[in-house]
Amino acid sequence: MASPTARLAKDYPWVKGPVIASAPMRLIALSSLAVEVSKAGGIGFIGASSDVSTLEGYFKDARQLLRSHHLQTANNTLPIGIGFLNWGADLPLAIELLRKYRPAAAWFYAPYQISDLVAWTNETRQATGNATKIWIQIGTVAEAVEAVEKCAPDVLVVQGVDAGGHGLNRGAGIISLLPEVHDTLAAKLKGREAEMPVLIAGGGIADGRGVAASIALGAAGVVLGTRYLAAPESVITKGYRDEIIRASDGGPHTVRTSVYDTLRGTTEWPKRYGGRAVINRSYEDAMAGMGDDENKRLYKEEEKKGDMGWGPSGRMTTYAGTVVGLVTKTQSAKEITEEVREETIAVLKRMHTIATDGWMAMSRL
Amino acid sequence: MASPTARLAKDYPWVKGPVIASAPMRLIALSSLAVEVSKAGGIGFIGASSDVSTLEGYFKDARQLLRSHHLQTANNTLPIGIGFLNWGADLPLAIELLRKYRPAAAWFYAPYQISDLVAWTNETRQATGNATKIWIQIGTVAEAVEAVEKCAPDVLVVQGVDAGGHGLNRGAGIISLLPEVHDTLAAKLKGREAEMPVLIAGGGIADGRGVAASIALGAAGVVLGTRYLAAPESVITKGYRDEIIRASDGGPHTVRTSVYDTLRGTTEWPKRYGGRAVINRSYEDAMAGMGDDENKRLYKEEEKKGDMGWGPSGRMTTYAGTVVGLVTKTQSAKEITEEVREETIAVLKRMHTIATDGWMAMSRL
Repeated sequence: MASPTARLAKDYPWVKGPVIASAPMRLIALSSLAVEVSKAGGIGFIGASSDVSTLEGYFKDARQLLRSHHLQTANNTLPIGIGFLNWGADLPLAIELLRKYRPAAAWFYAPYQISDLVAWTNETRQATGNATKIWIQIGTVAEAVEAVEKCAPDVLVVQGVDAGGHGLNRGAGIISLLPEVHDTLAAKLKGREAEMPVLIAGGGIADGRGVAASIALGAAGVVLGTRYLAAPESVITKGYRDEIIRASDGGPHTVRTSVYDTLRGTTEWPKRYGGRAVINRSYEDAMAGMGDDENKRLYKEEEKKGDMGWGPSGRMTTYAGTVVGLVTKTQSAKEITEEVREETIAVLKRMHTIATDGWMAMSRL
Repeated sequence: MASPTARLAKDYPWVKGPVIASAPMRLIALSSLAVEVSKAGGIGFIGASSDVSTLEGYFKDARQLLRSHHLQTANNTLPIGIGFLNWGADLPLAIELLRKYRPAAAWFYAPYQISDLVAWTNETRQATGNATKIWIQIGTVAEAVEAVEKCAPDVLVVQGVDAGGHGLNRGAGIISLLPEVHDTLAAKLKGREAEMPVLIAGGGIADGRGVAASIALGAAGVVLGTRYLAAPESVITKGYRDEIIRASDGGPHTVRTSVYDTLRGTTEWPKRYGGRAVINRSYEDAMAGMGDDENKRLYKEEEKKGDMGWGPSGRMTTYAGTVVGLVTKTQSAKEITEEVREETIAVLKRMHTIATDGWMAMSRL
């Protein structure tokens, strides 16, 4: 069987290694971000989210933006991916658009149950003649096994609990999750190795060190979310972006919670998911016992402050991962993608030196 | 300044790279485990815990066990380390024993406040003529900065939230924590680089993939806890060890909580810490609203069942990290240490191949 890297090279022939994808962040990762990431040799994703009524506009924008820049694709696909929130997205409309625009990948996430993705997978493959590759994001070993048994995705995105925005309330970091997903699938798929999906790691990765670590853990590539919030191509306000640059020490200063969903009215997420964001006054008030109605009223008031509504004493939501402290400056999506790729190769070289000049010398003592 | 690897080679001259330490697990990691790990080229730690009244016995046992096996040490130290829980450990008695037995390292953890460690650090260094090196374990960037500014430890153990047993209730995985600790310290210590501690990663690591990932993130070595629970040298019951081997998918199946401390009466831990363990009936009952008195009564009853008291429907506590699913068989501490070291080197070689044969080929397309 072809190596995971070779499969990525075949399915997304414009990519450069190590493979870096941008997360399909809801309302944030639209055509401009996705196209810039792909143009820089990554795999850019548009967040179609739970409401696909705006997706055709994004496809048209992306096609337009890609016109001047020829990227080599497989099977006449569009060199970007589309991410869906499957608890809300409309299947027939989505399939119609996938058939028409043929993105290189469709990323499924957060169905009420994994089995809901069987129809999405089959219809996408049928509609595009298997040209649009299936990515499924999971957060536990059990979800990984179920997704692979039921859908045989091309790619499994293994999301660790450090991830920003929505993820499972109860999970592990990729440091332990990714190797266990790999080993469990390898054991289950003995004799049918062709069904082993390519593993892509997400959650807590923002630079070349995180990418190299993910490769060590068994991933063939990574997905970055929080880091791309620093790119002007992400559709967020200045207040949100400034807070991403400011915030640090994400362990104590971010939290996964349903408080921000309650305030923002995005309450249809399956109950097993919460959104990780920088801790702010809304969260602290909720923990101190403030009722939802009063907290929502204050949130609405805060909206009038514009960019001043973000920050630890503000009330606007700053979805971000624990890695937010490694995001310290604004950079274009192109710069981020290229820099992280180059750093990764530098980290690998440094590791090689540590092993040869350091460990080998140590063992000779 | 000497590289972190060179500093480890100088201070612990018996070690082999990559440096693997065994965690000073309370009541579990005693002389036999520590000595076996050191004899295998790692750094074995005895968990002196919060009550040092038994420490002299452990020291004597360790010295006896080491007698037949000459390990090269620095400054006439004992080639093992001792871990303290500083919220409870008695400083004068500890210092007396450190002076007398001169372990290669003293590992400080969980003081009520970081500044409590200043006296521990200074007195240890004075008592041993700086021969016993200072390891301090932290769980956030803020703690790292404070520990380094106040104590200038030789080693900083960076504990991610995936760790088993006790850790901060609010933290990040090492995937994001370790690089941010590194960068923040490097910036703060500009001009006084000699004060930069060696970084050792812990939390979620059980095999060569986790070690290689930690090296990529910037660690000079790692500490393993859960993996060593599979070694017969760990002082745990068969029921506990069987549950470690059985449990999998640690994200959903372990939890960090104070429930187990309440049941076991270890309630003096500073409030910011909880213990990660496999979810069992005690925890589920507590979440369902059972009062502490009834839950404790049932715990006491369960103790009578012996090894049958462990497991998801049991009530005895199985402290373990999210990585528990990667621990699948009993192995001696020696085998674990050697296997993990060899795996790490194999992972590095594989990464080199992926980069050269995979990514480079990709980029040429």
